[in-house]
Amino acid sequence: MQIPFIAPTADAALSQILQDAINNKTKPLGSLGRLEELAAQLGLIQRSTRISIEQPAILVFAGDHGVVAEGVSAYPQDVTWQMVENFLADGAAINVFARQNGCALHVIDAGVNHDFGPRAGLVDRKVARGTRNFALEAAMSPQELDTALEHGMALVRDLSGNVVGFGEMGIGNTTAAAALMHKLTRLPLSQCVGAGTGLSSEGIARKQQVIAAAINKHAGAASPLEVLATFGGFEIAMMVGAMLKAAEQRKVLLIDGFIVTSALLVAVRLQPAILDYCVFAHCSDENGHRMMLENLGARPLLNLGLRLGEGTGSALALPLLHAAANFVNEMATFASASVSTSDQ
Amino acid sequence: MQIPFIAPTADAALSQILQDAINNKTKPLGSLGRLEELAAQLGLIQRSTRISIEQPAILVFAGDHGVVAEGVSAYPQDVTWQMVENFLADGAAINVFARQNGCALHVIDAGVNHDFGPRAGLVDRKVARGTRNFALEAAMSPQELDTALEHGMALVRDLSGNVVGFGEMGIGNTTAAAALMHKLTRLPLSQCVGAGTGLSSEGIARKQQVIAAAINKHAGAASPLEVLATFGGFEIAMMVGAMLKAAEQRKVLLIDGFIVTSALLVAVRLQPAILDYCVFAHCSDENGHRMMLENLGARPLLNLGLRLGEGTGSALALPLLHAAANFVNEMATFASASVSTSDQ
Repeated sequence: MQIPFIAPTADAALSQILQDAINNKTKPLGSLGRLEELAAQLGLIQRSTRISIEQPAILVFAGDHGVVAEGVSAYPQDVTWQMVENFLADGAAINVFARQNGCALHVIDAGVNHDFGPRAGLVDRKVARGTRNFALEAAMSPQELDTALEHGMALVRDLSGNVVGFGEMGIGNTTAAAALMHKLTRLPLSQCVGAGTGLSSEGIARKQQVIAAAINKHAGAASPLEVLATFGGFEIAMMVGAMLKAAEQRKVLLIDGFIVTSALLVAVRLQPAILDYCVFAHCSDENGHRMMLENLGARPLLNLGLRLGEGTGSALALPLLHAAANFVNEMATFASASVSTSDQ
Repeated sequence: MQIPFIAPTADAALSQILQDAINNKTKPLGSLGRLEELAAQLGLIQRSTRISIEQPAILVFAGDHGVVAEGVSAYPQDVTWQMVENFLADGAAINVFARQNGCALHVIDAGVNHDFGPRAGLVDRKVARGTRNFALEAAMSPQELDTALEHGMALVRDLSGNVVGFGEMGIGNTTAAAALMHKLTRLPLSQCVGAGTGLSSEGIARKQQVIAAAINKHAGAASPLEVLATFGGFEIAMMVGAMLKAAEQRKVLLIDGFIVTSALLVAVRLQPAILDYCVFAHCSDENGHRMMLENLGARPLLNLGLRLGEGTGSALALPLLHAAANFVNEMATFASASVSTSDQ
């Protein structure tokens, strides 16, 4: 399997043109703050001073995790498939926010432990019925990892539009993400483990013990892909493939919360320039996400105490991408509006 | 002139009903963070579990300030009327963001130092051609203050819709707002004065000296309305009236940045319950706004380093109000979607 090559977006000449265009708009210099930085980033990704947000789509990857047998989640594993059904029935938070913000939603079965049968609206890329329990053995085989990565790449290859938001559903996947975070950032495990869907402090302590023992057991897992295969989920691996392909195709990647960012941690170690294509939607309330973002040098757009996953943060941040594009495309300049410039 | 009475929104029984409705949605408890708090607030304001965002409107109040004669702004006074023309020509940031988010925009001449003549789209409530220079005398007379407050109240009385966003334009108005902040919060003046549209550090020092001397000169101004008449602007006073009327009518008040919040500081000291109706759109990059928000016990939705005014933060936060309403109105419940609840 071939990892896509991702080119940095840096372009000094275009940067200057974009900055001049932004500065000439009828507003004090720099007064649109983060939106100005976002506009400059989008312009570099799209290699244009005319920024477009076309057919944004959110991909929600669902998968189950063998490690839930260790009692690491506040919810039973059945909630994964039940929530997939909820997505298909338009009843979940991500349905509401994607619809509100004019965003297509694709629900992918990456490896749910349930037989959905043929279901309209569900993209079937099931690698297996859940990963294996990483407390006992590697979560997936090298072949399963490859399959997940390739499905992720293929899904994005077939996607129209130039903005891809990422989301996920999988009971137990904050446990997988915490293990990935610890292995890839070397941050202390206690800073990587959180309450997930709502564990008690005893539950969090147990989750941390399970991960610590597994980290110890699989001490040989070293490369990003080995770590991903050992601790990851099919939804996380498929996201890694999708992220790499999206950046290769110079799409904007809209990064959601803790689990999505754990997938990015893997991708960034394979292709560091992928960061140029990432817009960080929000800082999640899940313990560890803030540190993950700091590790990536990322500044999120929103900070609303969300900890729901599904891509909800991605969907909620989308209007800010539109705002960044629209001010560049639609605002008057000092010259065109005959507004006096600063005395200074 | 009669100040409207504003009733607190507290209602323990309805609060419980709203919280139960929120908790029954298919998501971990509390996982929509600030959006859940926002939904509960909107439900109390609207006295309903069915939250509606109807015909949201942003009112942009424009006014000039005599104190600009002291050299307190990076831009010449003419920019006030030039930007009003820009609003009317659809070329400013607030035009772009209001249009994007389906928000009506009303531009009000509260007291610009310019003769616009009859202009389609401009709401003429000019109290005078700018305030007087508060370095020398009170910015407005008691009669002018009353006129501004009454115009503000009347504007909202005639407004359909249940969400009012506030915005402003006025070269010199961060100077007025800083003086109001200092007088009403007792915070040190140095924490109230900032760069405005982009002063140098020397410019900021001069601005602070001008305000400090005026504070000294007008030491007798004590009541909130005296302080407003002495240091305020017509656009600020008109906003105070509009805010009070909007809360009396149980509309949602969407509070923008430094100047809008300075108007709220006056309103809250007249009718403290007005805070129940306020949604704080963002924390501005203008020095002082964060402290102003803390003084009000307010937590803003966005933190994007904006310092543009015009109501741009209000417009950008509007999708989050829709999101709060939509998740309550549209999401499935655990029971309706047959999703298992937490083990804990």
